[in-house]
Amino acid sequence: MNLLEHYHTTRQYSEELCSLLQTEDYVPQPVAFVSPPKWHLAHTTWFFEQFILTKHLPDYKVFDEDFCFLFNSYYNNVGDRTFRAERGAITRPTVQQVYEYRRYVDMHMELALQLKDDEIHELAELGINHEQQHQELLLTDIKYILGCNPTFPVYNEDIEWENQENKTEAGFTPINEGVYEIGFNDEGFSYDNEHGRHKVYLHNYEIANTLVTNAEYMEFMESNGYEDFNYWLDEGWVWVTENQVKAPLYWHRINGKWMHFTLSGLQEINPDAILTHINFYEAAAFAEWKGMRLPTEFEWEAVAQKLNWGQRWEWTNSAYLPYPGFTKPEGAVGEYNGKFMINQMVLRGKSCATSPKHGRATYRNFFHPDERWQFNGIRLVK
Amino acid sequence: MNLLEHYHTTRQYSEELCSLLQTEDYVPQPVAFVSPPKWHLAHTTWFFEQFILTKHLPDYKVFDEDFCFLFNSYYNNVGDRTFRAERGAITRPTVQQVYEYRRYVDMHMELALQLKDDEIHELAELGINHEQQHQELLLTDIKYILGCNPTFPVYNEDIEWENQENKTEAGFTPINEGVYEIGFNDEGFSYDNEHGRHKVYLHNYEIANTLVTNAEYMEFMESNGYEDFNYWLDEGWVWVTENQVKAPLYWHRINGKWMHFTLSGLQEINPDAILTHINFYEAAAFAEWKGMRLPTEFEWEAVAQKLNWGQRWEWTNSAYLPYPGFTKPEGAVGEYNGKFMINQMVLRGKSCATSPKHGRATYRNFFHPDERWQFNGIRLVK
Amino acid sequence: MNLLEHYHTTRQYSEELCSLLQTEDYVPQPVAFVSPPKWHLAHTTWFFEQFILTKHLPDYKVFDEDFCFLFNSYYNNVGDRTFRAERGAITRPTVQQVYEYRRYVDMHMELALQLKDDEIHELAELGINHEQQHQELLLTDIKYILGCNPTFPVYNEDIEWENQENKTEAGFTPINEGVYEIGFNDEGFSYDNEHGRHKVYLHNYEIANTLVTNAEYMEFMESNGYEDFNYWLDEGWVWVTENQVKAPLYWHRINGKWMHFTLSGLQEINPDAILTHINFYEAAAFAEWKGMRLPTEFEWEAVAQKLNWGQRWEWTNSAYLPYPGFTKPEGAVGEYNGKFMINQMVLRGKSCATSPKHGRATYRNFFHPDERWQFNGIRLVK
Amino acid sequence: MNLLEHYHTTRQYSEELCSLLQTEDYVPQPVAFVSPPKWHLAHTTWFFEQFILTKHLPDYKVFDEDFCFLFNSYYNNVGDRTFRAERGAITRPTVQQVYEYRRYVDMHMELALQLKDDEIHELAELGINHEQQHQELLLTDIKYILGCNPTFPVYNEDIEWENQENKTEAGFTPINEGVYEIGFNDEGFSYDNEHGRHKVYLHNYEIANTLVTNAEYMEFMESNGYEDFNYWLDEGWVWVTENQVKAPLYWHRINGKWMHFTLSGLQEINPDAILTHINFYEAAAFAEWKGMRLPTEFEWEAVAQKLNWGQRWEWTNSAYLPYPGFTKPEGAVGEYNGKFMINQMVLRGKSCATSPKHGRATYRNFFHPDERWQFNGIRLVK
Repeated sequence: MNLLEHYHTTRQYSEELCSLLQTEDYVPQPVAFVSPPKWHLAHTTWFFEQFILTKHLPDYKVFDEDFCFLFNSYYNNVGDRTFRAERGAITRPTVQQVYEYRRYVDMHMELALQLKDDEIHELAELGINHEQQHQELLLTDIKYILGCNPTFPVYNEDIEWENQENKTEAGFTPINEGVYEIGFNDEGFSYDNEHGRHKVYLHNYEIANTLVTNAEYMEFMESNGYEDFNYWLDEGWVWVTENQVKAPLYWHRINGKWMHFTLSGLQEINPDAILTHINFYEAAAFAEWKGMRLPTEFEWEAVAQKLNWGQRWEWTNSAYLPYPGFTKPEGAVGEYNGKFMINQMVLRGKSCATSPKHGRATYRNFFHPDERWQFNGIRLVK
Repeated sequence: MNLLEHYHTTRQYSEELCSLLQTEDYVPQPVAFVSPPKWHLAHTTWFFEQFILTKHLPDYKVFDEDFCFLFNSYYNNVGDRTFRAERGAITRPTVQQVYEYRRYVDMHMELALQLKDDEIHELAELGINHEQQHQELLLTDIKYILGCNPTFPVYNEDIEWENQENKTEAGFTPINEGVYEIGFNDEGFSYDNEHGRHKVYLHNYEIANTLVTNAEYMEFMESNGYEDFNYWLDEGWVWVTENQVKAPLYWHRINGKWMHFTLSGLQEINPDAILTHINFYEAAAFAEWKGMRLPTEFEWEAVAQKLNWGQRWEWTNSAYLPYPGFTKPEGAVGEYNGKFMINQMVLRGKSCATSPKHGRATYRNFFHPDERWQFNGIRLVK
Repeated sequence: MNLLEHYHTTRQYSEELCSLLQTEDYVPQPVAFVSPPKWHLAHTTWFFEQFILTKHLPDYKVFDEDFCFLFNSYYNNVGDRTFRAERGAITRPTVQQVYEYRRYVDMHMELALQLKDDEIHELAELGINHEQQHQELLLTDIKYILGCNPTFPVYNEDIEWENQENKTEAGFTPINEGVYEIGFNDEGFSYDNEHGRHKVYLHNYEIANTLVTNAEYMEFMESNGYEDFNYWLDEGWVWVTENQVKAPLYWHRINGKWMHFTLSGLQEINPDAILTHINFYEAAAFAEWKGMRLPTEFEWEAVAQKLNWGQRWEWTNSAYLPYPGFTKPEGAVGEYNGKFMINQMVLRGKSCATSPKHGRATYRNFFHPDERWQFNGIRLVK
Repeated sequence: MNLLEHYHTTRQYSEELCSLLQTEDYVPQPVAFVSPPKWHLAHTTWFFEQFILTKHLPDYKVFDEDFCFLFNSYYNNVGDRTFRAERGAITRPTVQQVYEYRRYVDMHMELALQLKDDEIHELAELGINHEQQHQELLLTDIKYILGCNPTFPVYNEDIEWENQENKTEAGFTPINEGVYEIGFNDEGFSYDNEHGRHKVYLHNYEIANTLVTNAEYMEFMESNGYEDFNYWLDEGWVWVTENQVKAPLYWHRINGKWMHFTLSGLQEINPDAILTHINFYEAAAFAEWKGMRLPTEFEWEAVAQKLNWGQRWEWTNSAYLPYPGFTKPEGAVGEYNGKFMINQMVLRGKSCATSPKHGRATYRNFFHPDERWQFNGIRLVK
């Protein structure tokens, strides 16, 4: 697939993901970490306009001056007319106008991609990967927004992957002590945070072949896992008690049964399905209860080719920090990854909601330890 | 106009007010005191369904069970499935479904109003007045929501009443000391909080014939009115300093000029227009700076027939408290007024945004002293 | 008693109140509305120094420049070196230094009071009354501070007035409709907020001869008074639910019994004692449950000479607002009362903790409706 | 020095640190992360009582039942009578009673240490190290508490180490790539978080021989280091803007000069002194501005024997996480370290305020990235 095709496929996929929404669903921002679908569609478009079209396409005229600051996620550079308003209060442009914006930028990107300009191609590849990242966020944000409706609306009746089961037999794979090479070393696209192929020394460990299931986690819950502080990190325990947490996100106890709000609506928990929507605190507490632990991101990557991964983003016990030799690129693109390297934990693998072809063994995803609206899960190590 | 006509006119007017909105504008709740237009349309409908149709129309089947708690503003009675979600995050039912809900309820109300049932008629009148109150909130909430858009969208180009000027000549009317009668004593609809016609003793005072204008208020601003704590109530001063207030709500200083965001978009301030969007703290500080004061609600009502009122809700220096003999009705309807009689100040008159025929001289409006998104203004007394 | 004697008696009484404290008890400010005893002792002294000595005593040298802003409660006028620190974090000057400050100011006040200067005498009288007000706050703040100790320390074993019973027979006194005169009209000291003797028109009412007892209030509690929103003002209900209130302040349920933390330590509730430590919300909810109401401050004052008052500050249903003709004095003394006339409710009478000779029938005390650490109580009206 | 001597020396040193305090200084808790000196003195004592005396000394009677929960920092195990009160509001026991508590426990510890009981000896060593840790906190908390006084009181005029300069010549030491051994491997006391001697692979780096000075940091400040978001981690930038930070903690701009509040009072900044009181965000931003970075804790430990360390705790770019094979001990002692391994960054070395003989090259100190009241500093790596 050439770059232009890749561009179009990616752009279409974003819109496909939104095709089942009502106009109203595009608008809200129920919590700070969730963005309105409308904003995702516009922001990914702005990325192409801002970094490619305005800089590299001769005579390009921006679609709308206002969009430059409305859909910039990097507020640091915003000029005069900043407003305290939350994204969820910005009703204009309308959804339809955002789609027109997409059309306009797509048309000009088509021209830009025909120019023989390496920088355009490189930035376009970054833009495509950027949009793919937002596609996963689109899905998880849509789930969150629909989940705020007490009526449990269905996004898509045919989604089955939320209930997927492990395809491998349970058990542990032992890994030998020694020096391993870590970091991206391949052809194709990758992010700056994966760069700096380097050596790490690992000690013996055994890593689980399967991800933790709902049944296993319910055992933890029934053993008073959420009531016994001994399993929890100190800040995890504060989180549990302040929020009176009793179960993973989207689990509802209805008429004595645990139900799960999914993109296909409210469903009974399938005990054999792979657990999801737990945060780092819960993952760590579960591991502690099991008498095991989470892998480091290096332990994970070293054995990635032997693992069956891809249903859930897997929490690791590694903080998100730079690899040796990491330097952030000059300018706004440099804000992509480096500045987030604090107070976040690394997740490895990919999830059922990750865009096609977006995952790879060296990919470093990262979230704060209290966040659980992504499709993340638990792989144990002992 | 008979009751059925009154019902239809009122219902149509609510929808007319929304006819200029985009679907997206119906959704957000940018701050707690503003409700989504969608919610207003549904809640006023729910009021008729809940208090008339389900109780008094034989065989009535509710439109949707979920709406009963979704559009109940009295959370006290809500049952099991309460959610922490904010109104602005509830995307379903859609706007279109809400309009269907209105159709459905209107159709059944037509039947109900044909029954010769005094209680239905009484409740319908309450429901109509309730919807009229929400019409004014609809307008002020729409203004607030549109005002959260950094692009200053226009609601209706033809609205002129935001810039209306005083129609009376300036000056003061002197009133004599004595016993005056206060409270509703007429035919037609009124709220329970106006009842209890009673006597109050007033001392001599002089009341302004006109409302304070933008020019007068700008003089206050230019005399460092917002910087000198001596003019302010203690809690008002905290409000000014914590929020760094410098001007009325919706005023923006752009290129050295004061502009006002109106329902017709961003406009230059008209110095002769009547000031609006100031809260009680600002009204009281302005009066203090002038060496005058605000009227009490009794001083206002006693002289109402001599005043030209109706452009702005006029802040009084009376706290919202019960009249002698006030008792709240039994049941949910009793929650209408009485329970709000604390920490709010009374406003008298009506505003340019008040629904036709909704105002009267005994009407008691009330808001917290820090609220300023209503069309309120200042009349001085000395 | 001449003014100098009055000065000395008052000053000594403040120190007497503190004589049972440990040094540590003088320091904390557990919540914003409570001040450290050390601060009360210094602030009342600063009042004399600031308003009398520095202005009217020739050649007076302030005790310590720093004290001028440390012990000024009117932060509005404070200069450069303001700090964000809370009062409870200010450990210096020490308690001993504060007592030295008092000695120093007392010595100079003695000189000042010998000058034949009417302004000094007037301000001294204000300062004495100011200190008397702080004496009651000292007691209630000391109770609050000691009450933060899980060990329930005893302030003074011999205090009996917390458990005082009604001395009058129960029943109601009927009052006739008519015009009554309200406001201070006597010799001696009074505050500006009582001035402006004026007429009010009252309608027929009957006022209780006794204050509500613990037994009556426990009946309310046992009738699920704290669980039924119908009795509560809307903001009162928010307060109850957010704070999970179940009983008056200082009541602890221990081994199945209601205990009351008093200045004499933890004691069993005496059912016949007069209820105290309830806020306006609780007073209003109790009255609603009884099918009665609270008096207005005018209904209270009109009948004051027939009532047995003085054990508890009695919540009225009047907001704290200016009397007709009220104007605040020029300068800092003008900040004494006027600027607090918003969002507070008036209490009438006096309490067992009020300083000797400080009460009078026209006295207007005021607190926010959620405050309950004062010795306040309930008198009903029907 | 034998264990009993070590016990006594340590206990005396804590009291020596407090000998310059006024009783009032022992009480406040101005912010959540600072504890009252009184509490430190009692809590370290409680540690010996709780883990040694009540469990291992036959017939031991606790000094006071209440102290068991008052001075327990592990609230998780607290029983019935928990209070919402902040530590700074607990005035009883008095300072004198706390000293009596210390006497009582010391007397019994003397008996306990004479028993030939390995567990007692081991726990005593832990208790001594625990108290040494609190000694450093005592000093930094005392500085914080005194710093809340607008009068800048002097703790001890003779402290010179706050202004100490680098004793080594500037420059960088190059280190070779390879496998290094990390973790405690010595005789004597150490914490569980240092255990698990293990291998890490390090790549080439050069580490500074000296710590960053005030002069260097002032250059950063003058280059608009606090105004340019490009140098800052995202959460660091939020911290800077929300708190309007302009300089290190305790720096005050007075009459155009930067002054530093020290334990010896307010002093002019010495440009050659080693910088302190900056948090991780500031350390990272400074390094970014310099075009360098912070060392990892492994890079630091690998070269520790070649470095001159000990004036400041040195921020590393390592998150506080378990070493391979880390398991927390059973029971309450297990809460000592493990549960804090999230959202904190490691600091290495020791500071001028660290208790004598408490530091070692494998010691892992840890704080949140926004905390700056410790004596921490910056060593750069390139």
